[in-house]
Amino acid sequence: MAAEATIIGAGTIGLGWTALFLARGLRVRVNSRRADAERVVREGLELFAPTIPGGGADPEELVTRLRIEPDLDRALDGADVVQENAPENLELKRELFGKVAAAAPPDALLLSSTSTFLPEDIGADLPDPRRVLVGHPFNPAHLIPLVEVVAAEGADPRLAERAVAFYRELGKTPIVLDHGINGFVANRLQSALLRESIHLVRSGVVTVEQLDAVVVNSIGLRWSTVGPFQSFHLGGGPGGLRHWLSHLGAGLEKGWAGLGSPPMDEQTVRTLIDQADQAFAGRTYEQLAAERDARHTAVLRALAELGEGDATR
Amino acid sequence: MAAEATIIGAGTIGLGWTALFLARGLRVRVNSRRADAERVVREGLELFAPTIPGGGADPEELVTRLRIEPDLDRALDGADVVQENAPENLELKRELFGKVAAAAPPDALLLSSTSTFLPEDIGADLPDPRRVLVGHPFNPAHLIPLVEVVAAEGADPRLAERAVAFYRELGKTPIVLDHGINGFVANRLQSALLRESIHLVRSGVVTVEQLDAVVVNSIGLRWSTVGPFQSFHLGGGPGGLRHWLSHLGAGLEKGWAGLGSPPMDEQTVRTLIDQADQAFAGRTYEQLAAERDARHTAVLRALAELGEGDATR
Repeated sequence: MAAEATIIGAGTIGLGWTALFLARGLRVRVNSRRADAERVVREGLELFAPTIPGGGADPEELVTRLRIEPDLDRALDGADVVQENAPENLELKRELFGKVAAAAPPDALLLSSTSTFLPEDIGADLPDPRRVLVGHPFNPAHLIPLVEVVAAEGADPRLAERAVAFYRELGKTPIVLDHGINGFVANRLQSALLRESIHLVRSGVVTVEQLDAVVVNSIGLRWSTVGPFQSFHLGGGPGGLRHWLSHLGAGLEKGWAGLGSPPMDEQTVRTLIDQADQAFAGRTYEQLAAERDARHTAVLRALAELGEGDATR
Repeated sequence: MAAEATIIGAGTIGLGWTALFLARGLRVRVNSRRADAERVVREGLELFAPTIPGGGADPEELVTRLRIEPDLDRALDGADVVQENAPENLELKRELFGKVAAAAPPDALLLSSTSTFLPEDIGADLPDPRRVLVGHPFNPAHLIPLVEVVAAEGADPRLAERAVAFYRELGKTPIVLDHGINGFVANRLQSALLRESIHLVRSGVVTVEQLDAVVVNSIGLRWSTVGPFQSFHLGGGPGGLRHWLSHLGAGLEKGWAGLGSPPMDEQTVRTLIDQADQAFAGRTYEQLAAERDARHTAVLRALAELGEGDATR
C-alpha cells in the first residue's frame, strides 16, 4: 500500500482527499501556496473527520501524519501517489504535471481530480503523456464512494489497475471508464436530470422545493439502492429488462422527444434563484452541508450494515 | 380519517396499496375479477408486509380487514376512498370511473394510480369530470414515499387537499403538481437520466453494470439525502445556487447540447439486454426485488432515525 501521498491544492476537494488519506493511515503532504494553508487544512479536517466513512476520525490524530509543504519539489520527494486538485485550467494543470513528473519518483501514481479534462491533455508536457490518470471524485470527496478513473488512450492497462487498487484501499468505489468523454459519466447523468428539472420548474409544474422533494422521495431513494438499469430490470418483472424493453422500449424515444430543453435566459435564472432563496431560507451553508453529510453517512452505514456491504448491486 | 377503502385491480400497484392501506388500519375491499384474486392478494400481502414502513406488519393481522369483492357496486358501497389501478387504457378507465361515481358515495375520494392520463380525461364520463384525482405512486407502492397528486383543471382546490391529507395519514409524501404534464415529474426525470444512461452504454464508455454502480455510489446516494437543486445550492458554497448559476449557468446549455440522443434500434436494445443478462445473471426476480426492498427499508429507516424524520430536505 502507498505510504506517502502528495495532495496538490487545498480547496474543498483537496481537503476532502486529505482527510480521507490521513484517516486511512497515509502520510500526507499538502502542497499549497496559500498563506493560511495550515489553518484552512486544519479546519477542513475538523469539518470532515466526523463523517469519514466507517465511524469518523479524530482530527488531532490525523494531523500527526500531515505536513503543509508550499514547495512543490519538496512536497513530491519520495511520494507514492499524487492527487492533484488545482483549478480547472488546462494550461495550469499541464504545466503543473510537467513539474510533478520531474520531481516525483518515476513510479509514483499521478492522479488528477479534474472533472473536465482528459488525462492525455493534462499530461501533454510529460515525456510520456499517458502516465497521468484522472481520478475524479464526487463532492464531498471523503464521503461519496465513487471515483471515476480514466486512463489516457493507449496507456498501459496496469496503470488504471494500480489506481483502482489504491482507491479500493481507501474504501472508495473506483469505476474505470472505457474511454474519456466530456463530463465523464456521473456529471453527464446529473446534467441530464437537471435539464428536465429546470424545464419542469420553468413550466410551473413544480417549484424548486417540490422538485427536490419528488427526487428525494422517489428516484433518489431508489437509486441509492439499485441503479437505473436494475430498476427497469425489476420493473419488467420476472421477464427482466428484456420484457420491459419489449413493452416500453418503443415508447422511450417518443417520451424523450417530449422532454424539455430550457433556455438559461435571465427569466429562468431569476425563477430558480428566487425559488431557491425561498426553499433554503434561514439555513446557512454550514447547517445545510452538515445535514447533508449526516444523511449521507446514515445511508451509507445502513447499506453497509445490510451484510454484504456492497452498495453496487 | 377514512375507514373504508376500495382498491380496484390486483396487479403489483394495487397489491402494494392494499398492503399499506390495511397496515394503516383501513378496511379494504379489493375489486378484481381474477378467479385467483384471493390467492394473489394473500401472496402480495405476505410479500409486502415485512417492508411496510415503520417496522413491517403481520399478514395474518392484515387479512382480518380485507375482503375480495368481484362485484364493483358491492365493492364501492359506503367507500370513503377509491384507489384505481386498472391497466393503462383510457377508454377502460373512463368507463370504470363512470360506474365508480354512480356506485360510490357522492363525497368519496376518487383516486387513480395512472402514470399516463390526466384526471379530467379519466373523469370524462362523470357528471363532474373534475371529481377524479390522480394519485400516482412509485413502485413498490407500499414502500416509496412519493405520491404525485394531480387535480383536474378547474377542480375545487379542497379536493387535492383532501387527497394530500389522506396520503399523509398513510405516511406517504404527497406532492401536488400545479398542473398535469405527460409522465408527471418523477418519470420524466427518470426518463431523462435513462436517455443519457443508454447513450453512455451505447457509446461503450461504461457497461450496464458499471452505469448502475456509478449511480448508486454517487448521485443516487446524494439524491436520497438532498434533491438536485439543494445539491447545486450547496455546490455553490456559501453563495448558494445564485453563485453556482452565475459561475456555471452559462456552461449548462453547452453541456446539454453535448448529451446523447440514442436511437432505440435493434443493436441498442440487444446491447442493453445482453449486458443486463450478464449483470443480473444467477439471481432471480424475487431475490433481486427482496434485496432492493431491504435496502429501501434500511435507507428510509436510517433517514427517519436522524431525528426530524423529514427526508424532503
